[in-house]
Amino acid sequence: MGYTDTDKLAINTIRVLAADATAHANSGHPGAPMGMAPVAHVLFNKVMRFNPKNPKWLNRDRFVLSNGHACMLQYALLHLYGYALSIDDLKAFRSVDSITPGHPEAHDTPGIEVTTGPLGQGISNAVGLAIAQAHTAAVFNKPGFDVVDNYTYAFLGDGCLMEGVSSEACSLAGHLQLGNLIAVWDDNQITIDGDTNQAFTEDVLKRYESYGWQVLTVGDGENDLDGIEAAIKAAQAVKDKPTLIKLTTIIGYGSKLQGTHSVHGSPLKADDIKQLKEKFGFNPEQSFVVPQEVYDLCHSASAKGAAAEEEWNQLFAKYSEQYKAEAADLVRRQTGDLPEGWEKSLPVYTPADPAVASRKLSEIVLNKVYAAIPELIGGSADLTGSNLTRWKGAIDFQPPATGLGDYSGRYIRFGVREHGMGAIMNGMSAYGTLLPYAGTFLNFVSYAAGSVRLSSLSQVRNIWVATHDSIGLGEDGPTHQPIETLAHFRALPNMMVWRPADGNETSAAYYVALTSKHTPSILALSRQNLPQLEGSTIEKGIKGGYVLHEQEGADVTLVSTGSEVCICIDAVKELAEKHNIKARVVSIPCFEVFDAQPKDYRLSVLPDGIPSLSVEVMTTMGWERYTHEQFGLNRFGASGAYKDVYKKFEFTPEGIAKRAVATVNFWKDVPNIRSPINRAFQQLI
Amino acid sequence: MGYTDTDKLAINTIRVLAADATAHANSGHPGAPMGMAPVAHVLFNKVMRFNPKNPKWLNRDRFVLSNGHACMLQYALLHLYGYALSIDDLKAFRSVDSITPGHPEAHDTPGIEVTTGPLGQGISNAVGLAIAQAHTAAVFNKPGFDVVDNYTYAFLGDGCLMEGVSSEACSLAGHLQLGNLIAVWDDNQITIDGDTNQAFTEDVLKRYESYGWQVLTVGDGENDLDGIEAAIKAAQAVKDKPTLIKLTTIIGYGSKLQGTHSVHGSPLKADDIKQLKEKFGFNPEQSFVVPQEVYDLCHSASAKGAAAEEEWNQLFAKYSEQYKAEAADLVRRQTGDLPEGWEKSLPVYTPADPAVASRKLSEIVLNKVYAAIPELIGGSADLTGSNLTRWKGAIDFQPPATGLGDYSGRYIRFGVREHGMGAIMNGMSAYGTLLPYAGTFLNFVSYAAGSVRLSSLSQVRNIWVATHDSIGLGEDGPTHQPIETLAHFRALPNMMVWRPADGNETSAAYYVALTSKHTPSILALSRQNLPQLEGSTIEKGIKGGYVLHEQEGADVTLVSTGSEVCICIDAVKELAEKHNIKARVVSIPCFEVFDAQPKDYRLSVLPDGIPSLSVEVMTTMGWERYTHEQFGLNRFGASGAYKDVYKKFEFTPEGIAKRAVATVNFWKDVPNIRSPINRAFQQLI
Ligand SMILES: [Ca+2]
Ligand SMILES: [Ca+2]
Repeated sequence: MGYTDTDKLAINTIRVLAADATAHANSGHPGAPMGMAPVAHVLFNKVMRFNPKNPKWLNRDRFVLSNGHACMLQYALLHLYGYALSIDDLKAFRSVDSITPGHPEAHDTPGIEVTTGPLGQGISNAVGLAIAQAHTAAVFNKPGFDVVDNYTYAFLGDGCLMEGVSSEACSLAGHLQLGNLIAVWDDNQITIDGDTNQAFTEDVLKRYESYGWQVLTVGDGENDLDGIEAAIKAAQAVKDKPTLIKLTTIIGYGSKLQGTHSVHGSPLKADDIKQLKEKFGFNPEQSFVVPQEVYDLCHSASAKGAAAEEEWNQLFAKYSEQYKAEAADLVRRQTGDLPEGWEKSLPVYTPADPAVASRKLSEIVLNKVYAAIPELIGGSADLTGSNLTRWKGAIDFQPPATGLGDYSGRYIRFGVREHGMGAIMNGMSAYGTLLPYAGTFLNFVSYAAGSVRLSSLSQVRNIWVATHDSIGLGEDGPTHQPIETLAHFRALPNMMVWRPADGNETSAAYYVALTSKHTPSILALSRQNLPQLEGSTIEKGIKGGYVLHEQEGADVTLVSTGSEVCICIDAVKELAEKHNIKARVVSIPCFEVFDAQPKDYRLSVLPDGIPSLSVEVMTTMGWERYTHEQFGLNRFGASGAYKDVYKKFEFTPEGIAKRAVATVNFWKDVPNIRSPINRAFQQLI
Repeated sequence: MGYTDTDKLAINTIRVLAADATAHANSGHPGAPMGMAPVAHVLFNKVMRFNPKNPKWLNRDRFVLSNGHACMLQYALLHLYGYALSIDDLKAFRSVDSITPGHPEAHDTPGIEVTTGPLGQGISNAVGLAIAQAHTAAVFNKPGFDVVDNYTYAFLGDGCLMEGVSSEACSLAGHLQLGNLIAVWDDNQITIDGDTNQAFTEDVLKRYESYGWQVLTVGDGENDLDGIEAAIKAAQAVKDKPTLIKLTTIIGYGSKLQGTHSVHGSPLKADDIKQLKEKFGFNPEQSFVVPQEVYDLCHSASAKGAAAEEEWNQLFAKYSEQYKAEAADLVRRQTGDLPEGWEKSLPVYTPADPAVASRKLSEIVLNKVYAAIPELIGGSADLTGSNLTRWKGAIDFQPPATGLGDYSGRYIRFGVREHGMGAIMNGMSAYGTLLPYAGTFLNFVSYAAGSVRLSSLSQVRNIWVATHDSIGLGEDGPTHQPIETLAHFRALPNMMVWRPADGNETSAAYYVALTSKHTPSILALSRQNLPQLEGSTIEKGIKGGYVLHEQEGADVTLVSTGSEVCICIDAVKELAEKHNIKARVVSIPCFEVFDAQPKDYRLSVLPDGIPSLSVEVMTTMGWERYTHEQFGLNRFGASGAYKDVYKKFEFTPEGIAKRAVATVNFWKDVPNIRSPINRAFQQLI
């Protein structure tokens, strides 16, 4: 408390920088930064604990700008407080190859925790960051050693509140009693379309109360700095509930058009900027100016943060003496490296082992590796018994007060909330000490497409255990049977989509997914049993694609994934016996990983001179990249026993053989058949 | 009121049928049908107005089973009340090619209004059905002629309540004051993972109150039939609020395992079914038995419904005399045919016309056709000024009490609720009198993937106006720039994805989208201006793909869509002048429509003998189906002015020419180059 004129100047500096940068870029959103500058100043200057010189300090408070279009607010703060973001970076706002893109991207810019902009994601990431803090604290804190006790702060706008993903995540946050989560709602009564009363008249505070949150209000978000600080302190004081602070602000505060949607998504006009600067005591002839006393004020807060880190470092040094193993584990986790030797826990299979559904194979992996990888933490969107995501004896991550588990538990009951689950995983990954996974049916990963995309873009490591991966789920029928889903996520950059064919490939999928520090994965797993294949190994599987069954003088290559690979093996027999055709079989459990192999290896798998046929019980889209002909399902499936459904669509040895014969005949007159691996030019990536 | 033993017998018949059918299929969900049998009986037998002999009667009450896994409840009802669903159909539950699939599919089964199962969708569809009723009533009802006054009833479970899509739709339903919507929450305290207290402890009624709903409770949903009926009547009585009835039930009521999650998703064991039948007075040796008095009771309700329709027919006959044009319009709308001559309103362009962004071209179409197509009704997820979805002078669809519009308005302010918007559109389409469209950025159609999929599966007509369709949106950056999105939806069966290159193609896209009665569409539209192309016409565009620029003796075919087509035209010049290469240009604005053309036409567009190169600023996935080589973007985009972004990724005449040269060189030694249109065999569709 006790705010001075320098505080006001700092606030107005943020407003002017936001106006300058959006005007300079001739693009962007000045309104929210100008309206939220006061709360941002209070939070960064008086409340939050962070060290700009070490943006990755473990115990820093996390800040999430869920209304990511307001990123000039965040960029201005990062600059003022001394993060590696210069005034020139502000001038480069929204220009190609800058570190100040149109929405905050965590992998681009120091000090950005999570990538936001797509509405509703940031606040849901914040729930994940808060879960991660609660769990990490429960595992590592010891009497006298609160090595992890940070808060997570999030700003959000009406748009974030309207999005279903935030409803899912915030309902769960209430259930989980996350007292370490403090959200500030920028209640400016304005959306892009105009007044919020056009579409958004619900009682937000009542809704958040219904979720089990504490709700607070600050009526004058532009001037009542003491009130803002008091609200944040009151939020900190309640330990068993997240808090939503309703902060009434005026969008574009200071602009001639303040309080209107005109200042939401368009730069201020020149004369408006002029009067703004004059009003706030800035020279209207100059742009991107920061008064020295503002730098001083901000840097002194940063210095306090640096001192806090130094104090923490001393605490942690003592902790390391007393709790050597725990300290080493916490340090290791932050590197992203897994514990040495963990991979020895991965199960290995031979053809003598029984046929098992790959969802069950996944469960076996989890049961084998959970003890070796303590940062592994996961759950399911209310499909635990179907996804088989829970290892034996797992403790639930629950508020101790529920009697159902505690915060050190590593199994999360997400409820039927796929999109929220995805966004929460992104936040958990971003925290830095956890490796999250989550289960649902493959078809319902699509519900989470918005958050899955951001996993890829922000380069976090997490894993979808996506079971019931095809028409092979049988009776549930077309509403639940993926057709387009693998193509969708295979087309998403920096996403590994795995569809293992047996136990060794499932172990390979987990190996790559768990060790790829900057890439998320989707594991598509069968409901039905799959035999252990002759010729599969973990070593081959981790190449993403390999020759499962070689055949000298082959007439055709059958290329397949997952549950269809074993049917292709049977088709080889059928082709030899009934059609006198020699077929080889290639398994490509992961396009993305196969694509990353050297060309000569890929050509050895899919060589010139032999026509190829892909076999997968879903859309053929994307398979043309690897094969000459494609057998797939470019229509919706059917409800019935899975073997009946496979038969209906001819995914049988006979059905595959028929198409292999057609493929051989169609290509027999073509000389020097070229492998699709050969391309005229390389893509830019 | 005044329930008899026959009512109880009817209720128990539903329970026994659900147990029999799931046991016979050895698959399915008996628990919810058994728990909800009482409320279903009260609703169908005493409250709802419907005629099983004419399931499409316009003014029928709509029933939506949002917890679609409980479909044996609905199938039992349809059978008992005399819809075209026989006892043999119940025996065929969950078997291939039955009309009783694992989840209810509207296009398969008479009496099913919307396709449900994916949780949260049905209740959101119900909001759309209620919007459609309110709008149709406002447009067509006249003093003394309430030709449309039906209710929409929905059952939903905890899973539906947890899904964000329902939060979005129900918040909007409260804002819209939809008094014609009555939802019954099956509060059985059980989810698949076990007790709801593991993940779902929010105060649901308080949340729905915060949305502006009336909330009611019935404490004994298994026995208090009078209480159930009274609650439904109380819901009907409130005209300006939707109602949520919390109905406490016992999952699997009658089973030895009632009240546990064991009866949620697995058939009852034989001895359990035996005791169930004995307890309810059924012969345990017989299955699929319906007592005659139950048929009689149900059929008498159906007869009342038939009489109600007959009465309505007389009302409508009088209405037709007095309001001839309105009556004819209402009859026509239900056929799905558009008004004769509407297509004359479609704008036509010549190369002399100025360059215009295709989002703007879309706005021009809407402004031209809205008067000719009165069933067209749409809106935006709070991006009206960016999507350009609102025609000049449109009236908002709003509760009259708000003063912002009225229910006859044809512009819907959806708020930032893409997934809810998609599900609402599906419900609006299903109502039978409307043709809905909705706008958002293409990238955020992905938020609605769950509902988009169900548009396709349930074969409804609606249109996504998906603007800002590529890296061409520029400054907003990678978080907003689609890469995988078109591939995703192109891979979805029965979905038309359009990416028009200019005005004539935009008109063509609308022509096909508006006239395809059983197929939804996504129109991907540019933010940036596009020139009107020499060679484009509506007639060519509606073929989905055509030769835009022919060239005798061409060395290469450039194949493109949308905003890249005009750059390909410039590349033709570049290739001729700098490389002495002759190029032809093909535009394929819609894969799905092009694929449906005769093979000889497709081969004339993509002929043998010429290598081809696709050009599209997003994933190359899927393009291998049409071209030999692909130029695309298999990585995330960049934030910057759109021309800078295009330049960075070489989507310039020079960048295209470079790759065309590589394509020509790579294929020059291959004799008899085969068009990718030629295939070894046809897909099953
Ligand atoms: Ca706002
Ligand atoms: Ca339930």
